[in-house]
Amino acid sequence: MHGKNQIGNELSATGKKTFTVKNPATNLDLIGDFHECTIGELNKATKLANDALDLYASKTNKQKAKFLKQIVKEIKKDKSQILIRFWEESGLSMERGKVELKRTLDQLKNFAKYICSKKYNLNTIAEGTKKLPYLEKRMIPIGTVAVFGASNFPFAYSTVGGDTAAALAAGCPVIVKSHQMHAGTGELISDCVIRAANFCNIPNGVFSNLNASSIKVGSELVANEFVKAVGFTGSIAGGTALKKIGDERDSPIPVFAEMGSVNPVVMLPSALTDPKIKWSKTLLKSITTDGGQFCTKPGLLFMYDSVESRNFLRGIGEKIVKMTPAVLLGESISRPFYKKRNKLKHVKKVMFFEAPASDLPNRGQQSLLVVTDETFNKHEFLKEEVFGPHCTAVLCKNKRELKKIISNLQGQLTGTINGSKEDLSKNQDLVLLLENLAGRIIFNGVPTGVRVVAAQTHGGTFPASTDSRFTAVGDFSIYRFLRPVTYQNFPKA
Amino acid sequence: MHGKNQIGNELSATGKKTFTVKNPATNLDLIGDFHECTIGELNKATKLANDALDLYASKTNKQKAKFLKQIVKEIKKDKSQILIRFWEESGLSMERGKVELKRTLDQLKNFAKYICSKKYNLNTIAEGTKKLPYLEKRMIPIGTVAVFGASNFPFAYSTVGGDTAAALAAGCPVIVKSHQMHAGTGELISDCVIRAANFCNIPNGVFSNLNASSIKVGSELVANEFVKAVGFTGSIAGGTALKKIGDERDSPIPVFAEMGSVNPVVMLPSALTDPKIKWSKTLLKSITTDGGQFCTKPGLLFMYDSVESRNFLRGIGEKIVKMTPAVLLGESISRPFYKKRNKLKHVKKVMFFEAPASDLPNRGQQSLLVVTDETFNKHEFLKEEVFGPHCTAVLCKNKRELKKIISNLQGQLTGTINGSKEDLSKNQDLVLLLENLAGRIIFNGVPTGVRVVAAQTHGGTFPASTDSRFTAVGDFSIYRFLRPVTYQNFPKA
Repeated sequence: MHGKNQIGNELSATGKKTFTVKNPATNLDLIGDFHECTIGELNKATKLANDALDLYASKTNKQKAKFLKQIVKEIKKDKSQILIRFWEESGLSMERGKVELKRTLDQLKNFAKYICSKKYNLNTIAEGTKKLPYLEKRMIPIGTVAVFGASNFPFAYSTVGGDTAAALAAGCPVIVKSHQMHAGTGELISDCVIRAANFCNIPNGVFSNLNASSIKVGSELVANEFVKAVGFTGSIAGGTALKKIGDERDSPIPVFAEMGSVNPVVMLPSALTDPKIKWSKTLLKSITTDGGQFCTKPGLLFMYDSVESRNFLRGIGEKIVKMTPAVLLGESISRPFYKKRNKLKHVKKVMFFEAPASDLPNRGQQSLLVVTDETFNKHEFLKEEVFGPHCTAVLCKNKRELKKIISNLQGQLTGTINGSKEDLSKNQDLVLLLENLAGRIIFNGVPTGVRVVAAQTHGGTFPASTDSRFTAVGDFSIYRFLRPVTYQNFPKA
Repeated sequence: MHGKNQIGNELSATGKKTFTVKNPATNLDLIGDFHECTIGELNKATKLANDALDLYASKTNKQKAKFLKQIVKEIKKDKSQILIRFWEESGLSMERGKVELKRTLDQLKNFAKYICSKKYNLNTIAEGTKKLPYLEKRMIPIGTVAVFGASNFPFAYSTVGGDTAAALAAGCPVIVKSHQMHAGTGELISDCVIRAANFCNIPNGVFSNLNASSIKVGSELVANEFVKAVGFTGSIAGGTALKKIGDERDSPIPVFAEMGSVNPVVMLPSALTDPKIKWSKTLLKSITTDGGQFCTKPGLLFMYDSVESRNFLRGIGEKIVKMTPAVLLGESISRPFYKKRNKLKHVKKVMFFEAPASDLPNRGQQSLLVVTDETFNKHEFLKEEVFGPHCTAVLCKNKRELKKIISNLQGQLTGTINGSKEDLSKNQDLVLLLENLAGRIIFNGVPTGVRVVAAQTHGGTFPASTDSRFTAVGDFSIYRFLRPVTYQNFPKA
């Protein structure tokens, strides 16, 4: 670990302040002193990026694709040490690391393929007439993009994750604000990107990686005159703060922040009695896998109050009390998890189940809270996301109450409705309500597991994302970082 | 003139306050007392729109297209009286009215055609596999859209202009804040829309038209919980104020404001000596037609200082001094026009030409100011738009100075470069600079005259528009008001 900031092609450590990363499973410091990026270094990175802009934009899509594919090759070379550092820094399993890294490399390969495909030939032409001029619309890169690493996706939504891959594919220089909880993983990946850039003759400044444990570097980055767009995955507080900075600049810029959601799941009566699908097992897995630290974790479960539904929930609860608590990503995740959960525990409850407590650091006890619709309506905080392995189930008196509750939820990444096809067709009004909130509606499934394809929408109405018209996942996420320009009467060559 | 607010299908005049519209050519009041919309009426309109949302969205594209085409038919029925009121309220010529109305009807017909075409079938599908779910991405309406009428386009960017047509085509209810300077034209068009809506069985609330002479109604509209997007064409002050309200809501919404620009035109040396194109005539027409009241009027002309360029500008100037002053749209246009122009007149100038003064109201004297690059760099206000028939020409010492000036300009709707093809290929660096600012780059032409086709981009970097990723003109302007939703594992029907 060199612990330095990657300012274009140069490593830099001009600041005095350093920070370390802890292993969340042990709370012990890992190897590596990371130099907090100074404003001077930040300004140098943005200036370099701006200077590289036109040259990088002028590279052919084939050249950009080659760069993306070279990044994949470089990461594969260092795969073992990257995975070990991921495991040490995140507390997530090695198996999860492998799956997430594969997804990350696939994302890079997908964009390499997409920008060389005919689908990406976005020129729209209007032939000239005697009276009207020839017009040709092309999509050009929006400019330098600032990308914020996400705590819960050290690979797929960090250094060279979805946002970076989309921006580089679009022809935009990228400046990453590395996530302080996995600065080492960020550094290792950043080293690979720079090797690939040099190998592919990519202009100096197209990629930079900044270390920062404070919010100042991120704020300055979004306010910087050379930054033209922002990609962020994280909390509502973090995302809205960055959006505010972007909005209030002399020249405002789009801040695409994907800020998580509670992902309501409606279990229609037919789902509870369907012997073919083991819903309790499927839901429990979706709530607790990897410590429930997914923005698509089902945080709210809705069903009609009945003997069946109570038995169903008790079934899940009885499995929860036998679980081993999960290692959460770090103190900045485990502390708010318990703070929120302890608040939830004091509402009037029908049932509450939790895994046994642990003396080990950052362990998250899996839990299920069951409340009535009345209780749910009483406490605004029950609508909020609890990031970690918790779910709240709401027993509704009737459809009217259920509909009222859903229509009062905030914007969501996903909405799920489970039951028979007959039950679905009888509940199109519920589908419509979910549609008004969310970017993805799931039938007979769980919201976790985001397929990375062009047909995906990962976004939703505020606060799930800051702009429901874009997605953070899949081919179309590139359009966050492109803008149209029409050339009028230009020679066709 | 009933002077009432159109709240869904009902005419309403619950407020006490009324206002009149003046004929700018005479400053005399026109027939009609317009009832200022009350907050109660506004809330009723937004509630009706929200209630109509799902039903209107569920109409087929063919049904929506029928509605748009019926609006065209209804407007044609009332064409004569609409044109007369346009002429009285705007001070623009009857000929201009006819051209603008034709464009407006064409826009409606274009959208009707576009949403029924295969190009608009935006579903993206990912077939399911053994392990992965079936995904289908569709584009759905974003929700109720607030549209602000533009002072300078009483037809094409007002009641049922480009924004309204795009929103209705997308399946969004529309609430128009009618422009107070042509409330009568707005009322007549609004009546046509309502007749079309009733004829086509469009749900009550899909269209409302609000009268307002104060900014309060517009502000409340953007802040209203049921409004989900905004379309605005107008001043930087107006647009940024609305954007701020949209950004600061509990649940922020996209405010697409197209706020004009100075539209730099670079005359390369080869353009000044080209006998084939009568540039002085073409430019003069572009600067002064319809009182220069276009957001694409060329406001800044750049050329290298030489005997030829001074003679060229003198040629334009000599025509200007013989012109008859134009009727401007009203006092709220003529007052700031003279305020800005009188400020300009006091800078150190190379030349200044203006048409004779007039005793008649709201007459705008055409004018041309010629300054050196040094003078231009001294006064920040010389970079600002002067809305009306004025242009500032800047004589640059050399290319270095020209490039420095262009790279310091604000975002623009257009950038123009005129000269021989050889000269163009030698000046690709200037094209790149213009590209970084503008949404449309013109070669050998003038920025006025916006062709309404899919290949058009009417937008640019801030402050030309609030979001450079969208256009306000052409088929693609519909995407401002659509958002993707992915249906996972839903039955295919």
